[in-house]
Amino acid sequence: MKELEERILRDGKNLGGGILKVDSFVNHQVDPLLMDACGREFASLFASVGATKILTAEISGIAPALTTAIHLGLPVVYARKHKPITMPDQVYLTLSPSHTKGRMVELIISPEYLAGGERVLIIDDFLASGATIMGLARLAQTAGATIVGVGALVEKIFEGGRSALTSMGVPIETLARIISMDGDQIVFTDD
Amino acid sequence: MKELEERILRDGKNLGGGILKVDSFVNHQVDPLLMDACGREFASLFASVGATKILTAEISGIAPALTTAIHLGLPVVYARKHKPITMPDQVYLTLSPSHTKGRMVELIISPEYLAGGERVLIIDDFLASGATIMGLARLAQTAGATIVGVGALVEKIFEGGRSALTSMGVPIETLARIISMDGDQIVFTDD
Repeated sequence: MKELEERILRDGKNLGGGILKVDSFVNHQVDPLLMDACGREFASLFASVGATKILTAEISGIAPALTTAIHLGLPVVYARKHKPITMPDQVYLTLSPSHTKGRMVELIISPEYLAGGERVLIIDDFLASGATIMGLARLAQTAGATIVGVGALVEKIFEGGRSALTSMGVPIETLARIISMDGDQIVFTDD
Repeated sequence: MKELEERILRDGKNLGGGILKVDSFVNHQVDPLLMDACGREFASLFASVGATKILTAEISGIAPALTTAIHLGLPVVYARKHKPITMPDQVYLTLSPSHTKGRMVELIISPEYLAGGERVLIIDDFLASGATIMGLARLAQTAGATIVGVGALVEKIFEGGRSALTSMGVPIETLARIISMDGDQIVFTDD
């Protein structure tokens, strides 16, 4: 998606070590009109997968998942990383390595909002190693739900997450695909 | 806002101790069309305050702040509770008591995205004691920004947050105002 790639080139920062800072329009400050455009694009790309629910992980997946949900008219569930007091004792929980925290984080979903038979579209901000998305998929499958698609705003191709997800056999759509972050560059591919 | 009140009566749960569970449409699962309608309502209520930026706190403030931002066409910044590695060393930080966690949490904003001269509209999910909103206001004022309005989806009038905020002298708008949660009731007021 041209608009997102151009924004990354203009306002994104390559901090080294494969870390892309997009805090000025995705992760701390959010550009709502860009995020709305990304949600519309995901809604178009996944219009025919028959999703009944969108699933993401707090915190930075919420914005793109919500705008996609608005355009598809579907509820969105965000996995929590800490169990709030409003959640029942029995939950779906998995561990997932956090790239930016350097440790494992919990991903928790209440069984109240993820049931067998649901057709789940996963939307997140980044597809890097694929670990967070695999964690979300495990939770959904444990609940008896079916994954029908995976979308991410930014794919870091060089981290290989896409091949980790291929075994799910569902469409994977990303709106900006980075092939290299060597030096201080950010290089996209159209493939 | 009738639509929100009716949803709270239908799907909200009074867990006792003043805790209202709205996890099925605001805080864990999100109803995107309801949230979009709430954002449109805030945008209408605050159309004339001259805001240049919307400010909220992660996690559950993000959804209503983002939909308000879409309708006003303004950037939204969400205060982080943990400093990510992409944030500079020098930040705006304040402590705020968390009702649901029973301890103090940090609210952190990067100076990159909150500057002197900004006119800040604060949007959050709950106005209870007002502590989180006061924390956000302190951060904005430290940055040299001016608060121009405060909006929350749900006000728990019996926690008295509104009077704590009155000294700011800005419009305070809430979309559902709960006057009592005695027993298992949820009672609204139109005042």
